[in-house]
Amino acid sequence: MNNKVHRFPIRIYYEDTDFSGNVYHAAYLKFMERARTELLRQNDIHHFELAKKGIAFAVARLEIAYLKPAHIDDVLEVVTEIKSAKGARFILDQEIFRKDEILTRASVSVVAIGDNGRPVRLPQELAIKLGNQT
Amino acid sequence: MNNKVHRFPIRIYYEDTDFSGNVYHAAYLKFMERARTELLRQNDIHHFELAKKGIAFAVARLEIAYLKPAHIDDVLEVVTEIKSAKGARFILDQEIFRKDEILTRASVSVVAIGDNGRPVRLPQELAIKLGNQT
Amino acid sequence: MNNKVHRFPIRIYYEDTDFSGNVYHAAYLKFMERARTELLRQNDIHHFELAKKGIAFAVARLEIAYLKPAHIDDVLEVVTEIKSAKGARFILDQEIFRKDEILTRASVSVVAIGDNGRPVRLPQELAIKLGNQT
Amino acid sequence: MNNKVHRFPIRIYYEDTDFSGNVYHAAYLKFMERARTELLRQNDIHHFELAKKGIAFAVARLEIAYLKPAHIDDVLEVVTEIKSAKGARFILDQEIFRKDEILTRASVSVVAIGDNGRPVRLPQELAIKLGNQT
Repeated sequence: MNNKVHRFPIRIYYEDTDFSGNVYHAAYLKFMERARTELLRQNDIHHFELAKKGIAFAVARLEIAYLKPAHIDDVLEVVTEIKSAKGARFILDQEIFRKDEILTRASVSVVAIGDNGRPVRLPQELAIKLGNQT
Repeated sequence: MNNKVHRFPIRIYYEDTDFSGNVYHAAYLKFMERARTELLRQNDIHHFELAKKGIAFAVARLEIAYLKPAHIDDVLEVVTEIKSAKGARFILDQEIFRKDEILTRASVSVVAIGDNGRPVRLPQELAIKLGNQT
Repeated sequence: MNNKVHRFPIRIYYEDTDFSGNVYHAAYLKFMERARTELLRQNDIHHFELAKKGIAFAVARLEIAYLKPAHIDDVLEVVTEIKSAKGARFILDQEIFRKDEILTRASVSVVAIGDNGRPVRLPQELAIKLGNQT
Repeated sequence: MNNKVHRFPIRIYYEDTDFSGNVYHAAYLKFMERARTELLRQNDIHHFELAKKGIAFAVARLEIAYLKPAHIDDVLEVVTEIKSAKGARFILDQEIFRKDEILTRASVSVVAIGDNGRPVRLPQELAIKLGNQT
């Protein structure tokens, strides 16, 4: 993968907010997952095709700091950077911005799993697409 | 099935609300789906076991009137009544109450589908559990 | 409003699917709500500004037919047409397509409500923006 | 608060699952939030009443390890323990079990915020209800 920093825009809708007037805290995990999917898609990797091979990606560990709230109608940007990719495991930094303001900062550990739920090495053609250091 | 009217309590949490201060309109569909699942469970029918037989339930059609809004901390009751059950298709009335106040009123058409996505007759032992009129 | 038919693309992510392998039935209501918000935005109407005036839009009634399922990675298009707009009430047709295939067809009745939860006429400048026939 | 360990049951429904067949990773945050709300309710603290005082609880930081997946129809138990409560900030350990198996383990930092979004000390009567060490 040539450019390891991936940027993905998110619009905030009714569904993302809660009665406090802010975006619901679990919604940011959805935004980060959409961005990871788009990063994969940009590298020509698609969940639908992975599923045919019996492979899915699962979040193994996640740390997130909520720094400032987002609101209805906001346009955010999810900035994703692959920090390490070894065997079945990827570690990514994901930050969410509203213009220049950082709203959340997260570190996410994702594991490729097989049909039996156990971690699996990515098939070589996928590892190559992701610039995976095996 | 002896008692065709099924009652199921729902508590409203942050996740169900939106920034208007009311419960988000799509959340009521989740509440009604939970109640249908519990109605099945009460008749000893479980999604996990249906899946092993290659059967799932899909909503085919839904009409809902939103009469009054629900709010955070509310306790609601979903009242479900099977109006008809023929072959693969069930038609249910589902109303959601807060004490004596009716908040939403819906008619839901649910179809049993097989692995290929086509409607399938329920296996006889399930039809019997549901008092299905074949 | 010049063009009464509004088209809005939706990408299907993990969050939208359920264990049946299809998109969860309530997710389509979110997609349609996003499209209505974008139709408003195209007419320079924003929820955040409406909220400052004490106005929100609430779904009053909804009918939806689920014709075919959507799946992970699909790109859908929500096609929205305002059928009538009188006083506080809008009636919209919303159809969701995957390329040429129609997946869902809905009729949605939306009402503008004030802080007290009662229907309110749209302020004239908003009605004009929407080509509202008062 | 007499018993600092709070236990809350969760049933898994269609809405909680994704096309991998497992529970969607963000859904566990909802389950933990429901459990925190019920822990507050057990201590006679209600979001609706907090909102009248201009107080809301916001998640400031969260770490979660996903150890094993949950599935449709599962009954889980969220076990919540307040580790510290000082001024506006609470730190809680939250673990989710399926019978004896631990599925997720989380540490959550929650802050009481006022209308302006800034941290606020809890009013004394609430601090007392929570056994808050000021």
